[in-house]
Amino acid sequence: MQASTATFRLSELAERLGLERRGDDVEIVAVAPLQADAPPAGALAFLANPAYRKHLAATRVAAVVLHPAEAEHCPVPALLSANPYASYARIATLFERLPMRPPGVHASAVVDPSASVDVTAHVGAFVSIGARCVVGPRAVIGAGCVIGEDCVIGADSELVARVTLVRRVRLGQRVRLHPGAVLGADGFGLAVDAGRWLNVPQLGGVVVGDDCEIGANTTIDRGAIDDTVLEEDVRLDNQIQIGHNVRIGAHTAIAGCAAVAGSTRIGRWCLIAGGAGLVGHIEIADKVTVGAMSLVTHSLTGPGEYASGTPLQPKRDWRKNAARFGQLDRLARILLKKTDSSP
Amino acid sequence: MQASTATFRLSELAERLGLERRGDDVEIVAVAPLQADAPPAGALAFLANPAYRKHLAATRVAAVVLHPAEAEHCPVPALLSANPYASYARIATLFERLPMRPPGVHASAVVDPSASVDVTAHVGAFVSIGARCVVGPRAVIGAGCVIGEDCVIGADSELVARVTLVRRVRLGQRVRLHPGAVLGADGFGLAVDAGRWLNVPQLGGVVVGDDCEIGANTTIDRGAIDDTVLEEDVRLDNQIQIGHNVRIGAHTAIAGCAAVAGSTRIGRWCLIAGGAGLVGHIEIADKVTVGAMSLVTHSLTGPGEYASGTPLQPKRDWRKNAARFGQLDRLARILLKKTDSSP
Amino acid sequence: MQASTATFRLSELAERLGLERRGDDVEIVAVAPLQADAPPAGALAFLANPAYRKHLAATRVAAVVLHPAEAEHCPVPALLSANPYASYARIATLFERLPMRPPGVHASAVVDPSASVDVTAHVGAFVSIGARCVVGPRAVIGAGCVIGEDCVIGADSELVARVTLVRRVRLGQRVRLHPGAVLGADGFGLAVDAGRWLNVPQLGGVVVGDDCEIGANTTIDRGAIDDTVLEEDVRLDNQIQIGHNVRIGAHTAIAGCAAVAGSTRIGRWCLIAGGAGLVGHIEIADKVTVGAMSLVTHSLTGPGEYASGTPLQPKRDWRKNAARFGQLDRLARILLKKTDSSP
Repeated sequence: MQASTATFRLSELAERLGLERRGDDVEIVAVAPLQADAPPAGALAFLANPAYRKHLAATRVAAVVLHPAEAEHCPVPALLSANPYASYARIATLFERLPMRPPGVHASAVVDPSASVDVTAHVGAFVSIGARCVVGPRAVIGAGCVIGEDCVIGADSELVARVTLVRRVRLGQRVRLHPGAVLGADGFGLAVDAGRWLNVPQLGGVVVGDDCEIGANTTIDRGAIDDTVLEEDVRLDNQIQIGHNVRIGAHTAIAGCAAVAGSTRIGRWCLIAGGAGLVGHIEIADKVTVGAMSLVTHSLTGPGEYASGTPLQPKRDWRKNAARFGQLDRLARILLKKTDSSP
Repeated sequence: MQASTATFRLSELAERLGLERRGDDVEIVAVAPLQADAPPAGALAFLANPAYRKHLAATRVAAVVLHPAEAEHCPVPALLSANPYASYARIATLFERLPMRPPGVHASAVVDPSASVDVTAHVGAFVSIGARCVVGPRAVIGAGCVIGEDCVIGADSELVARVTLVRRVRLGQRVRLHPGAVLGADGFGLAVDAGRWLNVPQLGGVVVGDDCEIGANTTIDRGAIDDTVLEEDVRLDNQIQIGHNVRIGAHTAIAGCAAVAGSTRIGRWCLIAGGAGLVGHIEIADKVTVGAMSLVTHSLTGPGEYASGTPLQPKRDWRKNAARFGQLDRLARILLKKTDSSP
Repeated sequence: MQASTATFRLSELAERLGLERRGDDVEIVAVAPLQADAPPAGALAFLANPAYRKHLAATRVAAVVLHPAEAEHCPVPALLSANPYASYARIATLFERLPMRPPGVHASAVVDPSASVDVTAHVGAFVSIGARCVVGPRAVIGAGCVIGEDCVIGADSELVARVTLVRRVRLGQRVRLHPGAVLGADGFGLAVDAGRWLNVPQLGGVVVGDDCEIGANTTIDRGAIDDTVLEEDVRLDNQIQIGHNVRIGAHTAIAGCAAVAGSTRIGRWCLIAGGAGLVGHIEIADKVTVGAMSLVTHSLTGPGEYASGTPLQPKRDWRKNAARFGQLDRLARILLKKTDSSP
């Protein structure tokens, strides 16, 4: 873990976060996992996932933030929180040492004369910014980013490094894009014409709402006519592919390696697990949860949990069962015919 | 959508594309979706996918390009085309405002003295071009591209931005590579030797035929001995992985997040849907279609549609059915034994 | 294939590798596939995969490295090896012409004054290196790499080009990272707080052991509190996603497009096939093999081969069988009830 740079009394943390404190008013200088064998002195841990409850009794940390219902089992000083994970997140932020990104444009950066960069924005080394772009107050454009024509980067947004906005990408405020992300590339639009593929021009853009986060090497294509849209507070993990003209509702979170094909619309507060796929031109209601590596082939009109796939098995067993899958309709017909004709 | 920059009479479009016109000779200044609530004035839409036919009667656009069979239901002026999507693509191109990429090498670019760059080519900011490379007429190398040794970029090809050609990559004419694409990285060739992994040198290259398109963050490894080959007019979407020594036939199109393992050969005019996987060392015939997230584990000797996987279900139902999959061979044996022994 | 630059007598190769030679002492100037139609004169091939044995009798190469058990069927001079693939790898290395990466920092590179770069290291064009980084002897940082704060690059390690180390990434010796790889980006840590997502600070780093290799566009997130760890000689192919706090044991190899969710621990000498997924917070024993596109949803406590999924079928058949999967629990109940109640 990074070197700790701050010190707080547990009582100070309790006061800052509006939490109840139990036990001694110890000094906190770091965070650590509850189960750490050798946490640094003065470390605070959290207990949120019940699977980790077994580590509480023997913890070696100085203090724990946990739910009031767990307090009686805590052998060390504690902060009580109805939402211990969120409370931990706020405390951990106090111990985070973020790199400096001072205002100004690095001498090596290439900025089109028609672009507008706020004086409080940071533009790093080897960044290029195209015609008619606007970079807002306190925005950070890290080293090696390429910003094409007609892009807008809202206030307090951060492109960590080596992000590409191809063209017509508008980011809201406090958006974070991680390295390798590519927004605004051509959607995969192809017509067959005289025995060859013909590119369909991709005339739209990408609109990303406030507080969205987009992971490393994730790609979001620009729309064919209208825009591809992420509403506010959408959270995308790494290596996700979002096709052209997709719309993702506010607060939806998608885990790594998932993919959404063109023109599909996803509701608000959906949770899409890692490696899941959604075909194109479907609509997903609010509050839908899709399981890992599941394939969504049709619209889902109400909230709920959905999944596809088969369970992991030792390969010898799996092979036999998978072979039977290939006979399943025939087997079912035998069964149902037999059942029907039986007395 | 980007600002429109052109105006055409519908009759002009009809003449340019050789299409029949129906209705008033309206002025077209933009394109819009058929179902747009508030399309710009003078917008042209298209109808190609039958699923969108329901939007025709109430469309608010100024004109529609559609199949002659749909003409009688069209409430606005129309262009009649046997291939409305291709006709739309050609019209939309007229309204596309492409960024300027003037000839010349940007002052910041680093070009090896042994490389040859055509005077009509564009080399952008922060591009590096290695020894013995050749960049052809009117080629565009966008900002931040890294071109390693012994690469050839054919006439009119475009590396949009931040593309890497590691080494020995030869692109034909009119090839387009989108940001983050990596061609010519080491194939995953490993031998076990004395209890450790030993790298197998990857001595081949990558050959990409004319008119291919390669999506954002797609990777194509160079061959181990021979080359990895894409024939002409192959279309790869984003985040596709192509292993070493794969060969992909002309006109084959592969959707996002698919992967093809080493030494597999794919025929011409195949369609591989998103997230599909092909194991290594197999051969796929021409005109094979593979469904989304399907796994191809053996050669396919004739054209046709193939798929694997299970349908999406509510998680409660899925869990029960998935558990039964784990018993499938045993259940089948019970059924078949019972059937055999029954009167 | 690249131009050959070396010549060896077969007897010299036999001596260098400690192998027995059969047949004439021919001159070897290149390597070629066993089945090549027109290999260059003086080419050596290998036979390791039994599927290629059928090509031996008609091979046109000058010599073959193969197992002693295959020697009698070899129509040309041969080198006999108990491990022909490893022997081939060593021979092929002799014919590999690697690009020059001379010591020194390119004039365009931006290196923080607090960073330390060994005088024997190569730092290429458009590289930026952040505060407190250490670049070891003979390390190669290729063009366009971005190295954030507090990173260590061990001796003889190579970042081929356009690699990003976001922060707190420590690489051992002889580590190779291919283009587009992103190490040390924020893990996907989110708490729900007052109806919005709250970022959980990612305070850990990434530790990569000696001799690891990490493929193009692969992403490895930094840990939330502790580090994400790859032990020595781990081999990752392209487009793999490794979540925060994952630990991967020595010598484990993972094929393209696989993904490992946060806090999962994988043992030593595991083989994870392409497109496989591992959910978070599980433990995988040593020497586990996971099949292509399989999903691992629970810990695996012993060695062995595991798989999930269904076989590829013609779509018409697949559709029927897949529909029956959706009825599987009901069908099983009918079968078992019938069986129980039958005489």
